[in-house]
Amino acid sequence: MAFSFPAFKAPDFGKPPLCYAPRVRTEKAPDRGVAPANYHATSNFPEYLHLGKGEWVLVPESRMDCVLVLRGGRPAATEFRRLRKGDPVVMGRTENGEEGIFVHTDGFESAPDKFTDKFSFRARGTRETPFSRSYDALYDLMRFDRDRGYIVWVLGPAVAFDKDSRDAMQGLIENGYCHALLAGNALATHDLEAARFRTGLGQDIYTQAPRRMGHYHHLDILNAVRSHGSIRRTLRELRLRDGIMAACERKKIPYVLAGSIRDDGPLPEVIPDVYAAQDAMRAHARKATTVIAMATQLHSIAFGNMVPSYRVEKGGAVRPVYFYVVDISEFSVDKLANRGSSQATAVVTNVQDFVVNLWKHLVEE
Amino acid sequence: MAFSFPAFKAPDFGKPPLCYAPRVRTEKAPDRGVAPANYHATSNFPEYLHLGKGEWVLVPESRMDCVLVLRGGRPAATEFRRLRKGDPVVMGRTENGEEGIFVHTDGFESAPDKFTDKFSFRARGTRETPFSRSYDALYDLMRFDRDRGYIVWVLGPAVAFDKDSRDAMQGLIENGYCHALLAGNALATHDLEAARFRTGLGQDIYTQAPRRMGHYHHLDILNAVRSHGSIRRTLRELRLRDGIMAACERKKIPYVLAGSIRDDGPLPEVIPDVYAAQDAMRAHARKATTVIAMATQLHSIAFGNMVPSYRVEKGGAVRPVYFYVVDISEFSVDKLANRGSSQATAVVTNVQDFVVNLWKHLVEE
Amino acid sequence: MAFSFPAFKAPDFGKPPLCYAPRVRTEKAPDRGVAPANYHATSNFPEYLHLGKGEWVLVPESRMDCVLVLRGGRPAATEFRRLRKGDPVVMGRTENGEEGIFVHTDGFESAPDKFTDKFSFRARGTRETPFSRSYDALYDLMRFDRDRGYIVWVLGPAVAFDKDSRDAMQGLIENGYCHALLAGNALATHDLEAARFRTGLGQDIYTQAPRRMGHYHHLDILNAVRSHGSIRRTLRELRLRDGIMAACERKKIPYVLAGSIRDDGPLPEVIPDVYAAQDAMRAHARKATTVIAMATQLHSIAFGNMVPSYRVEKGGAVRPVYFYVVDISEFSVDKLANRGSSQATAVVTNVQDFVVNLWKHLVEE
Amino acid sequence: MAFSFPAFKAPDFGKPPLCYAPRVRTEKAPDRGVAPANYHATSNFPEYLHLGKGEWVLVPESRMDCVLVLRGGRPAATEFRRLRKGDPVVMGRTENGEEGIFVHTDGFESAPDKFTDKFSFRARGTRETPFSRSYDALYDLMRFDRDRGYIVWVLGPAVAFDKDSRDAMQGLIENGYCHALLAGNALATHDLEAARFRTGLGQDIYTQAPRRMGHYHHLDILNAVRSHGSIRRTLRELRLRDGIMAACERKKIPYVLAGSIRDDGPLPEVIPDVYAAQDAMRAHARKATTVIAMATQLHSIAFGNMVPSYRVEKGGAVRPVYFYVVDISEFSVDKLANRGSSQATAVVTNVQDFVVNLWKHLVEE
Repeated sequence: MAFSFPAFKAPDFGKPPLCYAPRVRTEKAPDRGVAPANYHATSNFPEYLHLGKGEWVLVPESRMDCVLVLRGGRPAATEFRRLRKGDPVVMGRTENGEEGIFVHTDGFESAPDKFTDKFSFRARGTRETPFSRSYDALYDLMRFDRDRGYIVWVLGPAVAFDKDSRDAMQGLIENGYCHALLAGNALATHDLEAARFRTGLGQDIYTQAPRRMGHYHHLDILNAVRSHGSIRRTLRELRLRDGIMAACERKKIPYVLAGSIRDDGPLPEVIPDVYAAQDAMRAHARKATTVIAMATQLHSIAFGNMVPSYRVEKGGAVRPVYFYVVDISEFSVDKLANRGSSQATAVVTNVQDFVVNLWKHLVEE
Repeated sequence: MAFSFPAFKAPDFGKPPLCYAPRVRTEKAPDRGVAPANYHATSNFPEYLHLGKGEWVLVPESRMDCVLVLRGGRPAATEFRRLRKGDPVVMGRTENGEEGIFVHTDGFESAPDKFTDKFSFRARGTRETPFSRSYDALYDLMRFDRDRGYIVWVLGPAVAFDKDSRDAMQGLIENGYCHALLAGNALATHDLEAARFRTGLGQDIYTQAPRRMGHYHHLDILNAVRSHGSIRRTLRELRLRDGIMAACERKKIPYVLAGSIRDDGPLPEVIPDVYAAQDAMRAHARKATTVIAMATQLHSIAFGNMVPSYRVEKGGAVRPVYFYVVDISEFSVDKLANRGSSQATAVVTNVQDFVVNLWKHLVEE
Repeated sequence: MAFSFPAFKAPDFGKPPLCYAPRVRTEKAPDRGVAPANYHATSNFPEYLHLGKGEWVLVPESRMDCVLVLRGGRPAATEFRRLRKGDPVVMGRTENGEEGIFVHTDGFESAPDKFTDKFSFRARGTRETPFSRSYDALYDLMRFDRDRGYIVWVLGPAVAFDKDSRDAMQGLIENGYCHALLAGNALATHDLEAARFRTGLGQDIYTQAPRRMGHYHHLDILNAVRSHGSIRRTLRELRLRDGIMAACERKKIPYVLAGSIRDDGPLPEVIPDVYAAQDAMRAHARKATTVIAMATQLHSIAFGNMVPSYRVEKGGAVRPVYFYVVDISEFSVDKLANRGSSQATAVVTNVQDFVVNLWKHLVEE
Repeated sequence: MAFSFPAFKAPDFGKPPLCYAPRVRTEKAPDRGVAPANYHATSNFPEYLHLGKGEWVLVPESRMDCVLVLRGGRPAATEFRRLRKGDPVVMGRTENGEEGIFVHTDGFESAPDKFTDKFSFRARGTRETPFSRSYDALYDLMRFDRDRGYIVWVLGPAVAFDKDSRDAMQGLIENGYCHALLAGNALATHDLEAARFRTGLGQDIYTQAPRRMGHYHHLDILNAVRSHGSIRRTLRELRLRDGIMAACERKKIPYVLAGSIRDDGPLPEVIPDVYAAQDAMRAHARKATTVIAMATQLHSIAFGNMVPSYRVEKGGAVRPVYFYVVDISEFSVDKLANRGSSQATAVVTNVQDFVVNLWKHLVEE
């Protein structure tokens, strides 16, 4: 099947009110990490700035809840904490050009089947929402973005606790369906625990049987990696070949392991400073075309807030960025929407099934 | 793969204390539907009664929360409401032979990997429990029981709301993996709605798009079936061929549609009296060897309470009855256990994925 | 505090398009329990029918998913199953007067604080939604409707499993805050179990401790009530004084116990035929001004579908009917909305806390 | 009511097998942050080490998943990452004295009501578990530990999103029921947002109404605090008086705000390095006698893993440490148990109700 994106349509800046919009205004950041009052904060929609004389520029590599800094005349979405004193910060809180800012919420053509009955059922997505098409669309998207996009996976540890899903994730990485992996200490630790002991927190990842003294397993592998100095060296020294981390190392897929206060160990690769970790994650957010966030509320929302709904490609074409959030809990999915990342496609299911399904369709068949 | 059950081992009635156990005692039911005080109530474990002189008999076709009546010298597990005045009811509340009753909790050989660390992780089953082996074991079991057992499906309406899972369920029925179907008015109605309109409660079962005036769909199909007088006739008259009910009719699979206070319509086949519905369901519980209960707390617990953990086959061999409960909520699964049906194997996931997985492994491959 | 309802504003039938609307049309029901094709089905909004010459009448005692029958020239919302052959059924599926039917979705004045930012957080209600005002509004409403309305409680068994919440519910009934109680066999059984044994399914309702042979408790109380012939007589014979059922009997509060396929026993008062149970519930739906549905998805949705969003009082004034659904699961609350009962106010919490809160504010203080 | 703890009983070291136990053995840490293979890892139970000649010492200020270092002949539970090269690490993985280590799982006297029926209901705690006694016990405990213990609260942001619960938390702090507060950037930010704007993420914390441009509120308060340099100074400059952070500052209650990758801002007080944050949290874990962890899976599990089940008081008496985890999701509660913190008392409810209940009983009455 030929895969195609919904077309993007830029606003018509030649018409009122946009043709009358003033030039965007900036003020200098009063201090390091501090914005001037009445700064403009970004959404996750495409936003245009009027630079004067009818020149509107679309903010590239955007993200929500940032300020816009005009560096060299070009806007950049910047975290408050990264502001330098004197940075020219875009001002204004209007959205329709009143202050030279236009928030473009309906740039991508949408389905023609919208209508409104006064009374209807099933307006909200839940476990009972049909997911057949969500899967089919994702299969097509993955095949496309495997070669022409940048697929980022955001993983909670659950995917490493089950044999089939861990195998499936390994297979997807090995077959090109993952360009970057974002996770925490736990995912990597339990994946390595499984490689070494075939357990997750001491429980056999196939039979569910608890192992004797299995509560030592994750500590032992953490200690081993700390002793060897790196995941890569540990894999080699202990001849561990299967699993998610082994596939990433073998295929040279970059990964970011962000630290958290729950961490044991941690692994040497884990970034202890959460804002350094944010920066490392944002580097992938700038490139992402498809994101699949599974079974981790913390990382899903963190990355969801970093990823814009669109991407400006080389040559200037604008395409959507797809964000799939996969979780067994409606609350986790709603929470992402309630934190502003409303463009996400939710699949309410167990991630074990989800990732095995993807592997079967994309790799096995 | 050669499939085999865990062996069943009867108690050794020749040893103390069982060799000293008195004969079981009965008292007459004082009234219709009323048991004598101090009646014995059944569990879902194998229970033996001492009929005297060392003759112990295993209760056949048992179920929990019933009384045992000795009719013609043979015990039968009987609902309180089905007691007739004067029925000889087994008395006593001890479990180790003190009153001639033995509850046999460990008749089936269990895994040899039991041990106890003082400290361990992951004692409770949740969404993070690995399900790879649960699936594999179920595939084997289904292949076995397809030809040599009696597979009962207990379905909530969700399975009809999604195209792929509805197709999968149809395929499983058509290929012999369903010997009886238990559900409510909603499952049948929305399956027929999908056959007629390709919607569930007005929402397209593939695209998720709501249809204009879609809230009429389930009422229209209900009215149509009521007008035609039966599901079978409606399928024929409206030339509806796909779906769960069509497959059941075509393959002559018996189904029980139990009424509930949530029903619209209802369909003519629905049993309005819930105790008549219980009786109809119990008829299948007596034969069941494998049960898969999906996405319906009401029907799962109702049927879970009817199904014993074992079945006495012709010839007297005793085999386990397998009960899989599939639900996205830990609470639903725990609730089944908290109502006494502790032998159930839980799979915590979206039933859409579950049933498609089964179909892929059992039918497609 | 003076409590007041939002004012209701009837449509202006003198203006286009309503002033040009044709008279509503009927067709005869072709058979018992069958509507003519193209029947009009009700929503839970106020609906007006044009009876000719500018006379529009508001459907009284409405409910969703019914047909409208013009009996004696007056419309009545009637379940399909209650149609008699030849009944004149209102026809048409338009909502703005095209066929003489007007669905009035915004009759009650709403809050003036509506607006739309392009980007915002927290559009969906979850456990994190603030409930302080929901409680305060409910306290006022309960005080008002205690004397001037009709408060219906719909209860799942959980409220009887905990000492404080059971006491609280008893206190609310005794103090006039309950005009009718809708529940199932389980609520009544476990409330009586608690009165007799201080347990719920064998677990102490205060200490959580399981009692030896506690799994007999609910069967024993069921057997006792069946033996005595009624709840009322059992309370007297066994001198049971506390609890929900005792309070209802003492205060002569009507209750409906609807049967379900999960029932043990059942209690003699339980209605085995679910459609007879629906009729008994609907009798209360016709009078209800405030409904509180707690911890029962089955009964909440069943009753939610029966209760309209408005009530026509003697004299013709129209007031809102308030429907509170209290459940710990977002899914249960969403499900009610997804089944059409969108006017419900959700409180996502444990019903134990909820009912104790109500009791403290309404009774204790 | 006189509050009393369950008595603690030390093991009898004069009896076999403990009287024959060898002296505990140590090996030197081979590198910084690395333990020798076969190290002993701690549980959250009381653990005794045999230092020779019958001298057994109880590990003070323990925590799970650490190693034990014998510094100056006294054991200290130390995180792997804090090991220095050459530290003498306790060796061995046996629990009954075989290597001089004894894990004491039943030191505190337990309830006398333990027994085992072969068949029973309700073995697992859920939303349907009765919580009346859990509340009553907690009220007593809080009154006791207010003056003689150390009460640590672990808070997710939800408690700041609702007016009544935020007021209640403020009241509990002001009345001495909080000795330390552990949270993240979000809790503090949204509490300050409420103090400044009366909103949480832009939604009114009383009326639920979204405010125009409310999505700027949390960014504005973050920017304000960053501009003023500290929470304390911001409270003074902006004259903010109500809320959780204001109460902490006024009462000089220490708080730890641990950074996470989800943070906007962050507030200046937030600790960016998660392991530095762990150390700051552990300082409170060493003193804690009662912990209440609400609505935060991340912080609850993090702190749950740091807090032992017992505390050695001055003078050597041993008392239990109480850990309440309050969450609306059974999964969150189970997850804490599945990560080893099995001694926690769960209350499955909305934290809004929980904290208001505490305030009412402890402060208002």
